[in-house]
Amino acid sequence: MQPQAVLEAVLYTDDLPAAERFYTEVLGLDVHQPANRRQVFLRCGPTMVLLFDPTVTANEASSVGGATIPTHGARGPGHLALRVAADSRQRWRDHFSARGVAIESEVEWPAGGWSIYLRDPAGNSIELATAELWGID
Amino acid sequence: MQPQAVLEAVLYTDDLPAAERFYTEVLGLDVHQPANRRQVFLRCGPTMVLLFDPTVTANEASSVGGATIPTHGARGPGHLALRVAADSRQRWRDHFSARGVAIESEVEWPAGGWSIYLRDPAGNSIELATAELWGID
Repeated sequence: MQPQAVLEAVLYTDDLPAAERFYTEVLGLDVHQPANRRQVFLRCGPTMVLLFDPTVTANEASSVGGATIPTHGARGPGHLALRVAADSRQRWRDHFSARGVAIESEVEWPAGGWSIYLRDPAGNSIELATAELWGID
Repeated sequence: MQPQAVLEAVLYTDDLPAAERFYTEVLGLDVHQPANRRQVFLRCGPTMVLLFDPTVTANEASSVGGATIPTHGARGPGHLALRVAADSRQRWRDHFSARGVAIESEVEWPAGGWSIYLRDPAGNSIELATAELWGID
């Protein structure tokens, strides 16, 4: 028994509207469900990036059709990596520069590939990386 | 400018060897790099699931080729969803039952699709879900 892929990656923030702006305007993700007091749901290709306010999700169980959606909610800077094309490095640099977003670090991986790191408004570490880094086609 | 997909989803734990056992033996992920004192790296199809000890990653920056890998590290139960086939629900139930792993909840989504929720050894909320839930083919 094996899952097929990551379907949802999750980060936490106390400011969901700021997260929605950052993930759409700076990172280019598509809004699946706009920010409310609990969450904002974003789509990235065949995967989802979900941001939650941990004050809400850790303390208020929600339910669907009588079934409980389990609580969760972490504090402190999390991490997420998004897959980008190998030839897009300079375009991403220019894109961030034009929006006044600082690049925290850039890494060239020994096995090949590269990563650009920045911070979201909540301080989460966001990485744009080529799949080559993991030997993934 | 748009990323292509989630490449790495991240969770945190104080017990990386226990995480490695759970994510391989119970969830069926492949080990990319076994647990050390900092991390365990697991592969799931075209994506990665990375578990870190936040005591290490929040406080010790690592470097590659002179470049710094930014620090991160969250505390408290996080969340991750892994994509599974729509027809695999009973097989997963049987798989978890045979390993003595409790299912915390099961949800049928109004838009279609289903989710099974369980907890990893660190208390993170792990979901197996069909992509139909998000309208993803």
